Amino acid sequence: MQLNKNYQNLEESYLFSTVARKTREFSAAHPEADIIKLSIGDVTLPLAPAVISAMHAAVDEQAAQATFHGYGPEQGYDFLKESIRDYYAGHGVTLAADEIFISDGAKSDLGNILDLFAQDNTVLVPDPVYPVYVDTNTMAGRRILFMDANETNGFLPLPDPSVKADLIYLCSPNNPTGAAYDRAGLKAWVQYAKAQGAVILFDAAYECFIQDENLPRSIYEIEGAKECAIEFCSFSKMAGFTGTRCGWTVVPEALTDGEQSVNKMWLRRQTTKFNGVPYVVQRGAAAAFTPEGQAQIQMALDYYRENARVLSEMLDELGVWYTGGKNSPYLWLRCPSEMDAWRFFDYLLENAHVVGTPGAGFGRNGSFFFRLTAFGDQQRTREAAERFKQCVRAL
Amino acid sequence: MQLNKNYQNLEESYLFSTVARKTREFSAAHPEADIIKLSIGDVTLPLAPAVISAMHAAVDEQAAQATFHGYGPEQGYDFLKESIRDYYAGHGVTLAADEIFISDGAKSDLGNILDLFAQDNTVLVPDPVYPVYVDTNTMAGRRILFMDANETNGFLPLPDPSVKADLIYLCSPNNPTGAAYDRAGLKAWVQYAKAQGAVILFDAAYECFIQDENLPRSIYEIEGAKECAIEFCSFSKMAGFTGTRCGWTVVPEALTDGEQSVNKMWLRRQTTKFNGVPYVVQRGAAAAFTPEGQAQIQMALDYYRENARVLSEMLDELGVWYTGGKNSPYLWLRCPSEMDAWRFFDYLLENAHVVGTPGAGFGRNGSFFFRLTAFGDQQRTREAAERFKQCVRAL
Repeated sequence: MQLNKNYQNLEESYLFSTVARKTREFSAAHPEADIIKLSIGDVTLPLAPAVISAMHAAVDEQAAQATFHGYGPEQGYDFLKESIRDYYAGHGVTLAADEIFISDGAKSDLGNILDLFAQDNTVLVPDPVYPVYVDTNTMAGRRILFMDANETNGFLPLPDPSVKADLIYLCSPNNPTGAAYDRAGLKAWVQYAKAQGAVILFDAAYECFIQDENLPRSIYEIEGAKECAIEFCSFSKMAGFTGTRCGWTVVPEALTDGEQSVNKMWLRRQTTKFNGVPYVVQRGAAAAFTPEGQAQIQMALDYYRENARVLSEMLDELGVWYTGGKNSPYLWLRCPSEMDAWRFFDYLLENAHVVGTPGAGFGRNGSFFFRLTAFGDQQRTREAAERFKQCVRAL
Repeated sequence: MQLNKNYQNLEESYLFSTVARKTREFSAAHPEADIIKLSIGDVTLPLAPAVISAMHAAVDEQAAQATFHGYGPEQGYDFLKESIRDYYAGHGVTLAADEIFISDGAKSDLGNILDLFAQDNTVLVPDPVYPVYVDTNTMAGRRILFMDANETNGFLPLPDPSVKADLIYLCSPNNPTGAAYDRAGLKAWVQYAKAQGAVILFDAAYECFIQDENLPRSIYEIEGAKECAIEFCSFSKMAGFTGTRCGWTVVPEALTDGEQSVNKMWLRRQTTKFNGVPYVVQRGAAAAFTPEGQAQIQMALDYYRENARVLSEMLDELGVWYTGGKNSPYLWLRCPSEMDAWRFFDYLLENAHVVGTPGAGFGRNGSFFFRLTAFGDQQRTREAAERFKQCVRAL
């Protein structure tokens, strides 16, 4: 047999393992140090009571023959697809239920969607970037172009009409930068994609953090996007489902190359290579959309938002340039005193006993930037903000 | 963008939709007819009490911050990998926990594993066949060869050394035929694969039905298989997880092309394109391996086995040639009176009000064969067997 040689072109990322090792080593050398992690990329609050109740009820259904659920539709149960359709309607986007596919998370579908595209497509990704966009295309041997996200464009690059691309990755609000496109920005991308005959793969995993009503929560708020965009979203951050695994992908019926329907191709892909999300999990996810579930989920999001506010206020006080923090759980700051990302990492760890994530791990344009996250405990985050402030002021 | 043109080469299967339509039409024309389905390919008994308890306990863990589980390891929690390792040890197969990858089901991994192989591989599949093996390779544009499974070889084809193949699909006990390879048969396949430098993709989704101690439950019971085989298995039929979604894939460390480790490639694939199985589901799956869980699960399997026995006895009495029924939930019979599969389907529906599955839907070699399944209710299955017998005797 012939193995896929493209795997040999994958680069190992040592970002999180190096962060862990350095933290471990510092802790061993300074056992008295009370280390606070502002590097957490996972939720920390438990599932909402409404979700828990729905999951218990669904488990009980699986315990009795009369209510037992075996194989379900690969693309998800109608009850959940319809809840998501209504959620979109709430921000002015009209979708058909059959344009929504329930998934086990945005990461799976962001990778698997590439099955639908030929190898011969040029991929455009921002730098800095969520590494999965690059790795999944490297595995398939596609040509990858990077576009610069930097301080000049507020880490929100706009299309360059001279660049030819077929598959365009946009993540807004962004991981790692927290920057979120406004309507004008997404409109420019939709126009560019339509002019190029390209497809936008829109990662909306953090849309639940958007509070500014002027910012779009879905790319389908932009006219024409249904003809050129696939949207990926998730219950992970919205409802704390990182370990419970549920998301959705929107593939509009209008998306076609003039010959094949991408929606029908994805349906065929999923019915052939996927067998649906657990019934119990889909029931839990649907409960997140009930009025009770929404109220509970907003409380958890507000908890994280308060952390983001505390960290934003700290950076504002210090006069440090940053993106995010307002409509995102991430803050992306220029390292003080022109330190590079890893030097600032060490400085912060040694002097404030605070751990963040060096931007260098997300691409060349992150070399002098640093990511903080809002997923920690509120009291600890406030304590970390104080220490951060003192330690940067001492520079 | 360029779509994947291989999708245009996929054939639509009308098997199950035609079965459903014909049944619906007959029922509408004969509302008094009490139709019994021996075509069910899904489990019908509820989850075992031990699994239900473990899932409830895990849901409760997700309700409290101190016990909450966010992102888990993409390849599965150690507690489940170690239970599966011990399960294999129980039938004499020694695996490392890191050779076991927890999945959301065998179907997903059977499709996704193909990411690791170049397009330029020749695929060998039996006819009749589980259509997913063909469709997933058609999507990738691979050359597919069929090998005849028929009455002469007992629907257990052996390798033809003159055929060159790179990827070989074996499913034992087989869906749809119920036939199970013995050690000599699998040994011949392992020797052939090693001689060819090929990989066997071994679908063991029905191993839990094997009772004959002379039949291997894992391909790794055959010497040398770790150097040439990947095994896919599932909790779907073993523990009724068709709607709860959990399985596993074994990728031995010894499997390599001399350059790349297939185990390391799969780990990279899964950490990049997958985010693990829900914590709650993994806890439920692990409970299936406790002594209490095993006892409960065997009771459910015995229930289905009794149905298979009743159907086997009926075919024995009629003198009809068939495979399966002994170590499998499927029975695959030659249609009486040289009827073709669809003619027998109509005859059985009209005269016995019993629905089965025409073998023609699984490949050319199924044209005169018919599948019955053991997943129904015991009393209804006995009733169906009586009607089947009378109706065939009347021929």
